[in-house]
Amino acid sequence: MSQCAEATLPDHPFIAEMIRQTRAFDSYGVNEQLSTTELLQPYVVTKAQRREIPIIGDPDEEILARLKAYYSAIAMRIEAGCGMMATPLFNLSHEGFGRVIISVGKLLVLDRSLRDVHRFGFESLELLCEQADVLVNNALTLVRQHPDAAAA
Amino acid sequence: MSQCAEATLPDHPFIAEMIRQTRAFDSYGVNEQLSTTELLQPYVVTKAQRREIPIIGDPDEEILARLKAYYSAIAMRIEAGCGMMATPLFNLSHEGFGRVIISVGKLLVLDRSLRDVHRFGFESLELLCEQADVLVNNALTLVRQHPDAAAA
Repeated sequence: MSQCAEATLPDHPFIAEMIRQTRAFDSYGVNEQLSTTELLQPYVVTKAQRREIPIIGDPDEEILARLKAYYSAIAMRIEAGCGMMATPLFNLSHEGFGRVIISVGKLLVLDRSLRDVHRFGFESLELLCEQADVLVNNALTLVRQHPDAAAA
Repeated sequence: MSQCAEATLPDHPFIAEMIRQTRAFDSYGVNEQLSTTELLQPYVVTKAQRREIPIIGDPDEEILARLKAYYSAIAMRIEAGCGMMATPLFNLSHEGFGRVIISVGKLLVLDRSLRDVHRFGFESLELLCEQADVLVNNALTLVRQHPDAAAA
């Protein structure tokens, strides 16, 4: 059954990085026993599910860990794509607002406002990978456009 | 008496910005009644005072507000110096560690690790201004070196 479930993960290089980062942010080993499919399942939040999630109060630690794992995985893919260190930085306020940046050298290669962090998730893992590809490719384009700042 | 105290503030353009930002971060108007000298006095923490401040537990909200006011004032001076918007971003963890960046366009013009935030302060207001000048000038040099990334 577990093996069958594993087969449903998209065949995309981002998935391996997501598994690595999600495990890395699981500081207390709470999810250690989960299969990789079970581990990534919470990233899938359908439109109907989103509507059910209240956006009052602080987002819980598990959502924040997933958000950080996602952008850290993106940083790792940027790093793999340009051969330079990419560092994420999060500023998450209470109430689910915030900003995330990823820098390569002195260059901001990603800069996003975050809102409704409580509802962080994607329609499917395929869509998660697709959107990550867009962010990674935009970042790599910026590195190519501003190589001096990226190397500074 | 208050006027006499006012006279002790250094004659430096950074001081006016510090007053503005410190007032801006005083969300609840707790310090509204203070003279400008009294308002800036908590930024002065001598070596002897530093040693007295324990660095256990979370830094309190007032120290965090001062730290943010200081780096926001630096961002404003960078903005005044290059005519482009400069935005600070803070990531302050519990226990007084963190990172602050200031970006102009896609350029990171300031990037500092923070530690012992509990003890944030300067030997004197003159030294506060001097150190701010160094940070502002370094940032403006970076803008001149990477104008394309700063304008992106």
